[in-house]
Amino acid sequence: MKPFERIPPCSARAEVLATGDELVIVDPEGQQVSDLVAFNADDLDEYLSSGRSIDYAARLWLTRGDPLYSNRSRPMFEIIEDTCGRHDFTLTPCSKDTFRIIYGETDGRPGCEGNLAAALAPYGIGVDRIPIAFNVFMHVAFDPDTGAVAVKPPLSKPGDHIRLRALMPLVVAMTACSAGQSNNFRYKPIDYRVDRARPANAEGAVTAD
Amino acid sequence: MKPFERIPPCSARAEVLATGDELVIVDPEGQQVSDLVAFNADDLDEYLSSGRSIDYAARLWLTRGDPLYSNRSRPMFEIIEDTCGRHDFTLTPCSKDTFRIIYGETDGRPGCEGNLAAALAPYGIGVDRIPIAFNVFMHVAFDPDTGAVAVKPPLSKPGDHIRLRALMPLVVAMTACSAGQSNNFRYKPIDYRVDRARPANAEGAVTAD
Repeated sequence: MKPFERIPPCSARAEVLATGDELVIVDPEGQQVSDLVAFNADDLDEYLSSGRSIDYAARLWLTRGDPLYSNRSRPMFEIIEDTCGRHDFTLTPCSKDTFRIIYGETDGRPGCEGNLAAALAPYGIGVDRIPIAFNVFMHVAFDPDTGAVAVKPPLSKPGDHIRLRALMPLVVAMTACSAGQSNNFRYKPIDYRVDRARPANAEGAVTAD
Repeated sequence: MKPFERIPPCSARAEVLATGDELVIVDPEGQQVSDLVAFNADDLDEYLSSGRSIDYAARLWLTRGDPLYSNRSRPMFEIIEDTCGRHDFTLTPCSKDTFRIIYGETDGRPGCEGNLAAALAPYGIGVDRIPIAFNVFMHVAFDPDTGAVAVKPPLSKPGDHIRLRALMPLVVAMTACSAGQSNNFRYKPIDYRVDRARPANAEGAVTAD
């Protein structure tokens, strides 16, 4: 079986998936977050939509068996394995502005938003197109009386993973998160692997489309 | 003072606001929702972002004194009056797909998404660009243990209003909501008024930009 790829701390990677390919995202050391965004590879105006996904699940926290919908209300992914069980789908990727506004940082680190934009630039997807991400392993809690948002250390333990099956051709990007509050100020790596639905020779034809 | 404009049930209207203009949205009969989206009038790639606004407020439910941020982390609006106090910023506008997936309806009503798209078409903003709306008066509750989403009858009473000050030139669109679950299956109208920061003769020059 193919080894995992490593996303170094505070960076991002992009991959092209064919229908049926499975993306496995692993938290190798525990308590790290991976912000994931996705676009229809054949029509980049269709993107993974938090609002549609939450609305149709009638649940903020999605897990095994849940589809993840696009802005056009079509299933883009299904979550087929999930050993952690807690992810966020309400907050936008951290950015240099997040660090300035929330943390008072002024050194201009790109954050997940900047890292996703750099990973997606070869596909012609600019920073304005990066929406609320599916924040894998991110632990966000809400006070039911006040609506207060609390970003807590992830519940993921070393080796926890989520497996997503692509339900359409996708350009997907994911990070090892740069926001201290999200990952308990440890800034660890993330591992991932794409298990192709078709063997490598067919896969080449698919990804060259 | 200028009279209110009425948005008939299950429809939408768009307006152009100059910096400093104030948009007042009124629920004339109570228990109705208005989905609001906004774009920088000078650069339509900048739009009102639920994720940024919630993240910076550290609260799901925004009210008087809260800024509403764009995807570029710049304040687009400030809420300066709010007699209701409960609005949603997590769910996408209802659509023909919402009605099909959640309600089992198949008669293809456009929903707030279709109505917003029609209102925004003259500005070159297509349906794919309509994100999670600021759902004025929408009452969404979350179970803190399961994350379950419950759409409840709005808390707005007849005459309740919210007043938003534009902090940049904006194209804004808003609806009288078409989703039965959101408005307690009453499908009422919404009223609004734009209080211009500059008198009418100057206003003409601004909105003709």
